[in-house]
Amino acid sequence: MQDNIINELYQVIGKENVLTDKEDLICYSYDATSYSHLPEVVVVPSSAEEISLVLKVANKHRMPVVARGGGTNLCGASVPIKGGIVLAMHRLNKIIEIDGDNLVATVEAGVNTEKFQQAVEAKGLFYPPDPQSAKMSTMGGNVAQNAGGPRGFKYGVTRDFVLGMKVVLADGTILDIGGKTIKNVTGYDLTKFFTGSEGTLGVIIAITFRLLPLPEAKKTMLAVFGDLMDGARTISSIVKNKIIPVTLEMMDQETMGLIEKSKPVGLPTDAAAAILIEVDGSEHEVERQMKKIEKVARAEGATDVVVARTEEEAAKLWEGRKAAFGCMALSAVTPITEDATVPRSKLPEMVKFIKDVAKKYSLSIPVLGHTGDGNLHPIICTDENNLEEMERVEKAIDEIFKETLRLGGTLSGEHGIGLAKQKYMELEVGQDGLNLMRQLKKAVDPNNILNPGKIFLQETEQINEKA
Amino acid sequence: MQDNIINELYQVIGKENVLTDKEDLICYSYDATSYSHLPEVVVVPSSAEEISLVLKVANKHRMPVVARGGGTNLCGASVPIKGGIVLAMHRLNKIIEIDGDNLVATVEAGVNTEKFQQAVEAKGLFYPPDPQSAKMSTMGGNVAQNAGGPRGFKYGVTRDFVLGMKVVLADGTILDIGGKTIKNVTGYDLTKFFTGSEGTLGVIIAITFRLLPLPEAKKTMLAVFGDLMDGARTISSIVKNKIIPVTLEMMDQETMGLIEKSKPVGLPTDAAAAILIEVDGSEHEVERQMKKIEKVARAEGATDVVVARTEEEAAKLWEGRKAAFGCMALSAVTPITEDATVPRSKLPEMVKFIKDVAKKYSLSIPVLGHTGDGNLHPIICTDENNLEEMERVEKAIDEIFKETLRLGGTLSGEHGIGLAKQKYMELEVGQDGLNLMRQLKKAVDPNNILNPGKIFLQETEQINEKA
Repeated sequence: MQDNIINELYQVIGKENVLTDKEDLICYSYDATSYSHLPEVVVVPSSAEEISLVLKVANKHRMPVVARGGGTNLCGASVPIKGGIVLAMHRLNKIIEIDGDNLVATVEAGVNTEKFQQAVEAKGLFYPPDPQSAKMSTMGGNVAQNAGGPRGFKYGVTRDFVLGMKVVLADGTILDIGGKTIKNVTGYDLTKFFTGSEGTLGVIIAITFRLLPLPEAKKTMLAVFGDLMDGARTISSIVKNKIIPVTLEMMDQETMGLIEKSKPVGLPTDAAAAILIEVDGSEHEVERQMKKIEKVARAEGATDVVVARTEEEAAKLWEGRKAAFGCMALSAVTPITEDATVPRSKLPEMVKFIKDVAKKYSLSIPVLGHTGDGNLHPIICTDENNLEEMERVEKAIDEIFKETLRLGGTLSGEHGIGLAKQKYMELEVGQDGLNLMRQLKKAVDPNNILNPGKIFLQETEQINEKA
Repeated sequence: MQDNIINELYQVIGKENVLTDKEDLICYSYDATSYSHLPEVVVVPSSAEEISLVLKVANKHRMPVVARGGGTNLCGASVPIKGGIVLAMHRLNKIIEIDGDNLVATVEAGVNTEKFQQAVEAKGLFYPPDPQSAKMSTMGGNVAQNAGGPRGFKYGVTRDFVLGMKVVLADGTILDIGGKTIKNVTGYDLTKFFTGSEGTLGVIIAITFRLLPLPEAKKTMLAVFGDLMDGARTISSIVKNKIIPVTLEMMDQETMGLIEKSKPVGLPTDAAAAILIEVDGSEHEVERQMKKIEKVARAEGATDVVVARTEEEAAKLWEGRKAAFGCMALSAVTPITEDATVPRSKLPEMVKFIKDVAKKYSLSIPVLGHTGDGNLHPIICTDENNLEEMERVEKAIDEIFKETLRLGGTLSGEHGIGLAKQKYMELEVGQDGLNLMRQLKKAVDPNNILNPGKIFLQETEQINEKA
């Protein structure tokens, strides 16, 4: 990077908040995928005003800018693939307000997800979205990626809870959009437009979320199956029976085995599959739903249905589920998490397809996922250094995506497109859909400085190469 | 309109589907506001392909195009203020699929709202948004305006149920966006972007909606108050107590009086206010919530809490509520419905302000609304021919909007901006927000043919004059 740009950054944000040492740059070069690329400079702002000034410098010099929260992204969205500036958002870490009277909260983008969830629950309130990265990820990252998680089945995803936000546009304009009201139809819905745009349209500074009252009671149960297909059918059957639990998380035998190897929580590793089910509501409602669910599960062939007796027992099971990705990372050099999502009724078909593909290409593909939403996370356990195997992996992913789309599904239920799924975009949204997205991006960020190279390429861009 | 354009329309859609007689044009010149303007031609398409061809003709000749559903709009959004072509959508009236296994349904844009609700409920499913225009309005109109209604308090608005749609862009491109899955983060969220855009970004052809299981039980109760402020405080208090009924509809004495005059349903016209409350869920849950609500209401000063004993009794009360706008239209030449929406806790303050403004300007302003959402519908009962009174009306509306924004609210909770609220847009979203919306519109519809003159004006446009 030219010295004059660095000097301009020193002026607008202070030398102490501009990092250029290689050790620092490395820390901001990767995310939870295997993509990585060094930024030229890391800037550590503490306010919208500072970010506005940084963006003005960047826009003038056509420097790429990537805002980075916890770096837990699963599609390469937070990797500065074109170099430039990384905005490290961790100093914007204030919970501005938790407003119980209006059931809303406002936080800065760098607030940790789990801390926010806990702060809200301490007031008897509830923020349902729960990406499994909650311990590390930030609320700004959640919004930029429209994070989901297990509770999406009953409560929806991040998008469904965003009411307003403060963003900084590429030219440095600071904009307050949406607000604190539940209903708002004043012009285009800019808050939903920025949500899930992966940092390509603006830098998210603060967000106002809708909250719910904390449910009075909840219980976790584990339905165990001797046949993976029985488990998959149970999910579809629960939906058909119009029961809406909070979660319907299926794990296959391979997944449970890998979890138990690194983080034993008592999952039935001799079973073909298990579904982790949480229900919430009033005490009475919880009991009633559990009975209904047990009945459906047993009718579909569950060999056992175990209810966690205490909160600790339930928490332990969930810790196992949350650790799944980490456990796979321990057993495979390169765990590639996919995010194929199909209409709920197609779940058994899709699970079978993935297992067949694994066999066909001799790959280890444990399957888990937020199966109530039809949202599957097959994790391809591979080694990027094994080039022959990687060829098979590519073919397997290709087949999985094509089948997902054939079944009326989507490439990505909740992880995003980033770098990882770009080449499949056109298959789903078509050339016309891509063109429309490109036009929107160009209208908002004409110099293409905001997280360039992500989701899709502008006409002038080159294919992203790996660093 | 030039003959050559009419001839081109004949060619693409058939002479029998192109109306130019003045009697026909008049039928498509108005909506539920007092705005009106004759189109130059009305086209009656039956498919996306036909609409695509019509838009190609329109785009070539820079002709304005306004898609029109039931014409029940409350902000002038469906009035062809610049003439041009009205697309009458009533032939696109097919319910394509109600898919209980996936809890989704797909309908054409011209499907009637109430018919859709009934078809869904006949299958034990539930589409919660319920604009009070349901008997007349269309699902495409609901989506274009992001319609709300009383049940928004518990269930959200139209936007929260749209999963996918087929739209035709200004240049005739037919685009399928979103899909049937609950989770989808493949690129920008175009479905939410088009929802609520008032026909300015594309013509909505078909929509896929998320559904819920139909709740097992529901009950309606009416809490009666001797003081309007006690009613307003009860709403805030229910929210503070973390109770989430389906509806919290407040009506003041004037509103109840006008309803009872034209459509007697048994509302307590001697009371200062009443709140129509619906709760749903399991039988047990319904009983429990009702008890809690009654307790809160009585603590805040309710003089009576009456529960509808039968479904018929409940339906009758709701018929009264739904007829409110019609009843006001019978008693005033020009009923102007406002849509000011404030954070829930500010409700008592806002209600008092509106009543004070009514007194200050000697106006009749009955107040009702989806008060659980902070969504108030003060209805200014006036006569547009009385120019002196209209001046006071303008001043009153100005004061109401400014106070709404001062309290952290929004100009429009659910009716939209259209023509009626354009001049207040900048007050809420600022010059920068307006610029961003203008850029987005320009990117999608560069010739500004889709419902031009609505929400905001492009730089080159003139202020809309009334026909």
